Amino acid sequence: MRRFFIAPSDVSDGAVTVRGRDAAHMRTLRMKRGDMFAACDGAETDYICRLTELERDAARAEIALVRACEGEPPVACEVYAAFSKGDRLETVVQKSVELGAVSVVLFESRRCVARPDARALERRLERLSAVAEEAAKQSGRGRVPGVTSARSFEEAVERAAMAALPLFFYEEERARGLREALSGGGTGGSVSVVTGPEGGFEPEEADFAIGRGCVSVSLGPRILRCDTAPVAALACVMMSRGGMETPRNRADRNDLQAD
Amino acid sequence: MRRFFIAPSDVSDGAVTVRGRDAAHMRTLRMKRGDMFAACDGAETDYICRLTELERDAARAEIALVRACEGEPPVACEVYAAFSKGDRLETVVQKSVELGAVSVVLFESRRCVARPDARALERRLERLSAVAEEAAKQSGRGRVPGVTSARSFEEAVERAAMAALPLFFYEEERARGLREALSGGGTGGSVSVVTGPEGGFEPEEADFAIGRGCVSVSLGPRILRCDTAPVAALACVMMSRGGMETPRNRADRNDLQAD
Repeated sequence: MRRFFIAPSDVSDGAVTVRGRDAAHMRTLRMKRGDMFAACDGAETDYICRLTELERDAARAEIALVRACEGEPPVACEVYAAFSKGDRLETVVQKSVELGAVSVVLFESRRCVARPDARALERRLERLSAVAEEAAKQSGRGRVPGVTSARSFEEAVERAAMAALPLFFYEEERARGLREALSGGGTGGSVSVVTGPEGGFEPEEADFAIGRGCVSVSLGPRILRCDTAPVAALACVMMSRGGMETPRNRADRNDLQAD
Repeated sequence: MRRFFIAPSDVSDGAVTVRGRDAAHMRTLRMKRGDMFAACDGAETDYICRLTELERDAARAEIALVRACEGEPPVACEVYAAFSKGDRLETVVQKSVELGAVSVVLFESRRCVARPDARALERRLERLSAVAEEAAKQSGRGRVPGVTSARSFEEAVERAAMAALPLFFYEEERARGLREALSGGGTGGSVSVVTGPEGGFEPEEADFAIGRGCVSVSLGPRILRCDTAPVAALACVMMSRGGMETPRNRADRNDLQAD
């Protein structure tokens, strides 16, 4: 089922209004009266709707069913990724959103090759936020994860360290693997995943992170690209903390699709 | 340390010969006498070498250390991915190799939009094999995983089903999540990961796979793109089967790098 994000204020009297770009998108998709779609208020409630009116700048729909969005995982996992070259961050953001990250925070570290200035950073965050919104729609998330930047490596680490389990992925870590770090955690909780740029972290950076309470972890003997490491780590976090369990009410959704 | 693949026959009398494109690559990299690199024979043995001679078409190097390659995981995991559009398969192959897949097998299924003819398929497999080799070098694999295609969905499933744990990822699976499917497996073994095209599998395809012994598994309530699903699944397989444990002899490698 197609999915659109709306503001909570666009829900009233058993109906939903979809505005602006999304209404235009509906026209491009040639949606018509009677078509079903999901309108998500960005706060984990889904309104399953039947389209009643599609005009130039707005669409109206009647609400058929209200339910908690099933796309949000029980574990709150933030991804902290160092700046990298080319379109690697788009891959990181897109896949992090699909896999259920609560947000993505970018930061600069010593070995970063890419160091955007303020203006380039602003444009980049805008672009990556659009990638996040698109991925949230396609994957069925209940909210659109934010994409922001930290002012420094230190700030990123200090924020990451506030999670119950802050994982700092360090190539030179020899003792602790991810399986061990995640073992016995049960379901839910909060986790941070901090990954470095193309050349990894410097020893002093790892020392700082460990000093602030991060857990230094290895992703194994193979060297993962900087756009592979956070995605692989996040997938493992999600699986181990119950974030990949089967849908609870997929059946409802199919009933409505067949309507 | 830089890494090159050689043929076992290029090792003799305590020396290694690197030929053709790789020798040319060494020149591009401005490597010089005395530089250390790893020559891997593609059969899980690494020769840590010191460059002695670099000519137009061949490089000679003396062997400083012979050791089992640490880049091969204890679990043999094959990735079976349906044809998909654009460069998504490049992402799948690149990340599957980094994460330790033993091979990637492509196949056509009912909802595939991309259906390459024989000639397009040949070109595509060539291109994807080059992606696999590059990823194997960069990530430190002990062999270059093959990228091949099955003649049909049925053939792919029958091959996949030969693994000890053949996982068939099916969007409509309601009962079994990946955590449950992987639980209690210990370290090692053989696993297949079978994932569908953009629109997923048809119910008849899932029935066929289950009938052949595959285990139907959900990746959770969010809809993953066809280039995200195999990578996420493989990461989870690797972690759960000991394929992401810390390097055993990273210390040696660092000593040699400092040499």
